[in-house]
Amino acid sequence: MQPDLLNLHALHHFRTRSPLTHCMTNDVVQTFTANVLLALGASPAMVIEAEEAEQFSAIADALLINVGTLTASRAQAMRRAIESAVAAGKPWTLDPVAVGALAYRTRFCQQILALKPAAIRGNASEILALAGMSAGGRGVDTTDTAASALPAAQALARQTNAIVAVTGEVDYVTDGLRTLTITGGDPLMTRVVGTGCALSAVVAASCSLPGDRLDNIAAACGWMKRAGTLAAAQSRGPGSFAPAFLDALWDLGGQP
Amino acid sequence: MQPDLLNLHALHHFRTRSPLTHCMTNDVVQTFTANVLLALGASPAMVIEAEEAEQFSAIADALLINVGTLTASRAQAMRRAIESAVAAGKPWTLDPVAVGALAYRTRFCQQILALKPAAIRGNASEILALAGMSAGGRGVDTTDTAASALPAAQALARQTNAIVAVTGEVDYVTDGLRTLTITGGDPLMTRVVGTGCALSAVVAASCSLPGDRLDNIAAACGWMKRAGTLAAAQSRGPGSFAPAFLDALWDLGGQP
Amino acid sequence: MQPDLLNLHALHHFRTRSPLTHCMTNDVVQTFTANVLLALGASPAMVIEAEEAEQFSAIADALLINVGTLTASRAQAMRRAIESAVAAGKPWTLDPVAVGALAYRTRFCQQILALKPAAIRGNASEILALAGMSAGGRGVDTTDTAASALPAAQALARQTNAIVAVTGEVDYVTDGLRTLTITGGDPLMTRVVGTGCALSAVVAASCSLPGDRLDNIAAACGWMKRAGTLAAAQSRGPGSFAPAFLDALWDLGGQP
Repeated sequence: MQPDLLNLHALHHFRTRSPLTHCMTNDVVQTFTANVLLALGASPAMVIEAEEAEQFSAIADALLINVGTLTASRAQAMRRAIESAVAAGKPWTLDPVAVGALAYRTRFCQQILALKPAAIRGNASEILALAGMSAGGRGVDTTDTAASALPAAQALARQTNAIVAVTGEVDYVTDGLRTLTITGGDPLMTRVVGTGCALSAVVAASCSLPGDRLDNIAAACGWMKRAGTLAAAQSRGPGSFAPAFLDALWDLGGQP
Repeated sequence: MQPDLLNLHALHHFRTRSPLTHCMTNDVVQTFTANVLLALGASPAMVIEAEEAEQFSAIADALLINVGTLTASRAQAMRRAIESAVAAGKPWTLDPVAVGALAYRTRFCQQILALKPAAIRGNASEILALAGMSAGGRGVDTTDTAASALPAAQALARQTNAIVAVTGEVDYVTDGLRTLTITGGDPLMTRVVGTGCALSAVVAASCSLPGDRLDNIAAACGWMKRAGTLAAAQSRGPGSFAPAFLDALWDLGGQP
Repeated sequence: MQPDLLNLHALHHFRTRSPLTHCMTNDVVQTFTANVLLALGASPAMVIEAEEAEQFSAIADALLINVGTLTASRAQAMRRAIESAVAAGKPWTLDPVAVGALAYRTRFCQQILALKPAAIRGNASEILALAGMSAGGRGVDTTDTAASALPAAQALARQTNAIVAVTGEVDYVTDGLRTLTITGGDPLMTRVVGTGCALSAVVAASCSLPGDRLDNIAAACGWMKRAGTLAAAQSRGPGSFAPAFLDALWDLGGQP
């Protein structure tokens, strides 16, 4: 990640448009996800009852579907929200948390893939499983490197027409033809719950920006990597990392 | 907000009585809400299954109803909790998150208004919508200033007999006849999820205090504004703001 | 708590084994629970749909059942997860939040006691109620000291064959015959939501370690007490306490 890869142009778009981002995400990371979006200037909203989710995803600029704490009723509401977003021409992003390791959510994610996500963001195990190339990881942790899942990510991108981001120590963002590589970040990010899930929310919001979607999603990955690097340098552990990370996102590129 | 308007008398009551506050609130802000109440000396408890919610709201000193992530089953449990609180003579407070923008929760809030809330706390768009004077905001964000919603707040207060707090850059607290104005705070508060929702919880707890309810609710608004001002002065962004805000609430007026 | 009671041997086991800990816990403390486990080197995962919870608790190293925001559907999923864990020979830990005060969860906890928890962690009121010796506390707060509940904890341990930890200003860990006492910590821990619930998660994870279970659970209590003491010394209030507490857990015994 070179300085010019921070993509200040996309960041400016993100802050001035303040994408209204409908997050249907897991119960563990909702607060952090909202705070990450707010720190970057977006407008997060979590709306979950089926009737409301359907109504809201047509209003919002972007929709995030994260299956971390999927339930039967949440799955039903997610499906209605996705269909409504698609009908309204709004992009939706899939975070297939722990897909491959757990059968129920794996079936669900395979079904909704047919509803044309604009983007998919996962770790190596999840992307391998979603592409049908692996039995998946150990719970939410990946047992593979992002690089090892790059062929799967490229195949998945070609198969679904989604931009696929397979993230880890290095992030790869691909449309199946072109692949961008984003380095940076810090291992401390894996000791704070929700950094990956929050990245998916930023990816979701970035899908609503003008310009090239592959570039915008790579920019989202770059902002999170950069903030992670800056925050780790100022932290004594994962506790002080989290507020420093939000401050770094807020300050990115000089704010305001 | 002048120093004497911090209302140290009400703050002392709040800390020594430690109101047991039953929070039926949205999934995104539960932790922050609990921590705000704890920092101020209250005893928060989140109880959500209908049978338990009904039992608990008769035991607790105050009840908060926040519809941010309303579901059908939560709505049913809320209704039973409210009825039980009312039967036991305990005050309940409504936070009509995103009412006006979303049809399902708008219907629900209009129905439960008949159950006589002691207080209503919302932003301008929400209060305008609840008073039937607007179609509501863009998601959870307000598109109106609090001042523009003051006539609606006053009308709503007269119509429901509740104290209505319409909050934003300036807060107004009204019973329809008398109106108190609270200034202070910091724009950074809008970049941390749950500051408004947590204020509603403090308002709910304040409804259980002895003395004039309008004054007590204005005091609650003043404590949050003051803590926001103090925290912003010590923060580098929204990440460091949140812990500084809780510390400031804890320290308010010299603690302990 | 003497320095040698920090049990660095157990801490080393905890960090190197990184127990995959299935947390079925309440909505208010999920993020903090996950971050506490991550700071100590464990792998938390929250999986809640009945089918998935059943599958996952057989894969995970340990299961936590916390009834803080119990619902009917969550109770059903918990029961299936427990049965699956037991069948797979995996230990499960009960945190009976507010048992005694609320009838629905009290019945549920009494029923699942028959499914042989490896450990039970609660405050004095909860342990007294679970042992059938008290009507329980005021909401989630205890109205008794841990010492006053020690006989109840010992009786409950003998009756259930679980290790029982009754925690408060002083922690007692007992198998009904042997009792270990852990001192330390700080009153500020009671002003941050989830410190007790997170301790239960660490206790749950510790049940999967090799060696003496009583010692391992006492070690878990000791780590949290020590981190609480260290964090309080560096905090200005409950807001700055929480990140300092996670940093202290991360640093415990010199990390990494």
